[in-house]
Amino acid sequence: MITSTSNQKVKELIRLREKSKVRDEEGIFLVEGPRMVEEIPAEWIDCLYISESYEKRCPEQIAAATAAGVSTEILSDEVFARVSDTKTPQGILAAVHMIRYSFADILGVKKTPAHTHVQRSFMQEPFEQKFSIKDGGSGRAKLPLVLVLDNLQDPGNMGTVFRSAEAAGASGILMSRDCVDVYNPKVIRSTMGAIFRLPFFRTDDLPAAVRDLKAGGLRVYAAHLEGRRTYDGEDYRRGCAFLIGNEGNGLRPEIAECADCRIRIPMEGSTESLNAAVAASILLFEAARQRRGK
Amino acid sequence: MITSTSNQKVKELIRLREKSKVRDEEGIFLVEGPRMVEEIPAEWIDCLYISESYEKRCPEQIAAATAAGVSTEILSDEVFARVSDTKTPQGILAAVHMIRYSFADILGVKKTPAHTHVQRSFMQEPFEQKFSIKDGGSGRAKLPLVLVLDNLQDPGNMGTVFRSAEAAGASGILMSRDCVDVYNPKVIRSTMGAIFRLPFFRTDDLPAAVRDLKAGGLRVYAAHLEGRRTYDGEDYRRGCAFLIGNEGNGLRPEIAECADCRIRIPMEGSTESLNAAVAASILLFEAARQRRGK
Repeated sequence: MITSTSNQKVKELIRLREKSKVRDEEGIFLVEGPRMVEEIPAEWIDCLYISESYEKRCPEQIAAATAAGVSTEILSDEVFARVSDTKTPQGILAAVHMIRYSFADILGVKKTPAHTHVQRSFMQEPFEQKFSIKDGGSGRAKLPLVLVLDNLQDPGNMGTVFRSAEAAGASGILMSRDCVDVYNPKVIRSTMGAIFRLPFFRTDDLPAAVRDLKAGGLRVYAAHLEGRRTYDGEDYRRGCAFLIGNEGNGLRPEIAECADCRIRIPMEGSTESLNAAVAASILLFEAARQRRGK
Repeated sequence: MITSTSNQKVKELIRLREKSKVRDEEGIFLVEGPRMVEEIPAEWIDCLYISESYEKRCPEQIAAATAAGVSTEILSDEVFARVSDTKTPQGILAAVHMIRYSFADILGVKKTPAHTHVQRSFMQEPFEQKFSIKDGGSGRAKLPLVLVLDNLQDPGNMGTVFRSAEAAGASGILMSRDCVDVYNPKVIRSTMGAIFRLPFFRTDDLPAAVRDLKAGGLRVYAAHLEGRRTYDGEDYRRGCAFLIGNEGNGLRPEIAECADCRIRIPMEGSTESLNAAVAASILLFEAARQRRGK
């Protein structure tokens, strides 16, 4: 059991929590709390950190993790509180290997990420093969529905976007490099587990990536306050992508220009705009609605 | 200029910021930052507090406020930082009289709240008469579209719900007493000004209030994970209300039972539920879409 906050592993965990640069360098991010930890495929876990009192409370969970080949480490409650990102630590935290997706993954060619073999959560019944290739091995698993995020900054919004996108059946998320770090603990929490299931791809050159989407046959819509067309007048029953901009400034002009078409969500009253995650969700669920054939 | 943090007014502002009980007793809440302050009808402002450096930066704004009959008080930058709710205070903060709506107001009988006469923001062109009676003085201004919130707890969600509801053309919001305080500074910020325009009503007896909605001719839908009907199969082109539950637990059974019908938003993947503000927004914008005749 680790009882000192000057322990190297403890220092490392704090650095991983606080700095996206450290997370990127190590290829590791942190996931906290039993509800979130149980969503993680066992093979993705580098090490599971458990507080002393959590171990006493839920010994069967620790045994299950060990049986599944997961490394575990016990921390005194005091040390656990130091590494935790929350005010009332729940006593379980996983260091998880980052997921590397290719650009093709966000189009719905759902291959198993390179570093994983079998994907099972150690706490649940056999983990569904969510990233398995659904159509027999080569082609597309679903009609592409891509969300493109330009400089999205709020961690809660980013997490909510993941959650909504998975629920709406999106194939993946494309984002500019300057978006908030997906592995930020607040983002992770707000995704409610969707981070482990929805492919995403971060790029330094968003205009080029959007052009690639178009070259791949997707119709690209920019959510824009000055859009001439209303969002519900378009046909999304084909491969398509929605561009969503920054919370305060919307889409950068050079990104909006990449779209085939600007659409707007009609608004009453004096509200200038919608919350970015709400706007994204309304568009995604309109696409889902149309694709269900309503 | 107030230069001491032991000044009575300063202490009062801090209490107003921190305690919903104090806000309720005084009937006063705080609104911070130039973008939010300029949304406030001048007559609602009890006093405008300005930092020394903001006064130097924007003297014309202070002059406009004074000309509009708004009381102002200058605080030293240090004192302003103490009363501010944000890490980087913007230098302007208003103490605002609470808005008292009747139950009827949330149905779209948009009367001017009792304590206001003429409503103008002192910073903008003449303030639109957003609460004026649109149909000549007696009846209903619009088809009722009411959002009903049961124990919604997250301030960001509450604010986002206001913002979305105004934009979707909702007539008002009904909420249980145990929802997060609408006058919480984080809620105010997240509404982006919708708090000043959308009628809302808080009740100790939510089931009775929902029965009143039904007695008023509204069809009441509960957003429910176990709903048999999908949300987009219903007709919202009549007076209707949507019940939205708590972030973690959903609707309390006794509230869900009050509804005419349970509806569900179909979800793919393994996401258990949507963010509460997102779910509310999807339903409201589906109603708006139908009402536009699509």
